[in-house]
Amino acid sequence: MKLYGYFRSSAVYRVRIALGLKGLDFDNVFVHLRRGDHLAPAYGQVNPQRLIPALADGTHVLTQSLAIIEYLDEAYPEPPLLPPDAVHRARVRALALAVACDIHPLNNLRVLGYLAETLGIDQAGRDAWYHHWITEGFNGIEGLLAESPLTGTYCHGEAPGLADVCLVPQVGNARRFGLDLSPWPTILRIEEACQRLPAFDRARPENQPDAA
Amino acid sequence: MKLYGYFRSSAVYRVRIALGLKGLDFDNVFVHLRRGDHLAPAYGQVNPQRLIPALADGTHVLTQSLAIIEYLDEAYPEPPLLPPDAVHRARVRALALAVACDIHPLNNLRVLGYLAETLGIDQAGRDAWYHHWITEGFNGIEGLLAESPLTGTYCHGEAPGLADVCLVPQVGNARRFGLDLSPWPTILRIEEACQRLPAFDRARPENQPDAA
Repeated sequence: MKLYGYFRSSAVYRVRIALGLKGLDFDNVFVHLRRGDHLAPAYGQVNPQRLIPALADGTHVLTQSLAIIEYLDEAYPEPPLLPPDAVHRARVRALALAVACDIHPLNNLRVLGYLAETLGIDQAGRDAWYHHWITEGFNGIEGLLAESPLTGTYCHGEAPGLADVCLVPQVGNARRFGLDLSPWPTILRIEEACQRLPAFDRARPENQPDAA
Repeated sequence: MKLYGYFRSSAVYRVRIALGLKGLDFDNVFVHLRRGDHLAPAYGQVNPQRLIPALADGTHVLTQSLAIIEYLDEAYPEPPLLPPDAVHRARVRALALAVACDIHPLNNLRVLGYLAETLGIDQAGRDAWYHHWITEGFNGIEGLLAESPLTGTYCHGEAPGLADVCLVPQVGNARRFGLDLSPWPTILRIEEACQRLPAFDRARPENQPDAA
């Protein structure tokens, strides 16, 4: 398998964790976002959407981190990243989407670029924007986690899964941007449990060969 | 089943279409976003994240439109909204996420509100923002659809599914904000095919009892 990615992209980070949890080997193809590799014609052939990650599994090229992870869970079912029960699966997916739809899209590089270059928002304004969407998102996720008896050592029970795979990179972003994480003790506790697992540790941005 | 929603929310619109395609009856609980019903204590009991939609199926309350639709597809499998093959499922999910992660979160009411109130961006600037993210997103989706032999009458083959359920409400938003849709002929052709189906027609915002 070949993973098209960039060390700092949290969408790619999710896929690295999932591949690690599944015990799957992969080669990296580095797509340097700040240098604009994703805009080059070669990458347009891989993903017309020009976003990372993309995962090549044999002749199939898959895009969108959550679609890739659901694919991995279907094609390589052990260990599962989603629980068996439909209601529980919906809970785990909702937690994952609370990161992937409600926080991350607002804070990625292209959006921060638009705020700076097109709207002329200064660094302080961009930082406040960044903090705002993480705070909104983490308040909701903390509520969903803290109020549910289904929350365990991890977001759902005693094995890491799709929700943890999305949550941990987002906590990493929050830390990198200097947020005080103490209002979200359940999120922090789960993140600490995840970071003790080798699959999460190996996937960290700073442990990637392209980390500058 | 009870659907907590608002006529104009495109995340709720997706769930209405999916319920219609499955032939499932539901009662509406109206959560008026512009009036702030989602911020009232009562709704916090339903969804601590304070976003719509939420779907109550018996005693289970589900949140996040894509998690709800995946649940419906698992709990009420006929007709399926995802194809059987794992690679094809990943393709359909990627198309759905290209709307649900890469376009819609940037253009919803809370983000437009932040741009106006906190950043002081005027109507023209907000319209340009709105157009920009739809254009970026639709360029990618048009590429994914037009270049694939798997695209049929609908986003994937000859039956409507999860990707169409997400695409049609986004086209509706684009139209409402006055975008010229002619650069995306495949998207437009598919949207027209969908709109001929009763499930899509009944789900339209203007056909909802709470449409003002």
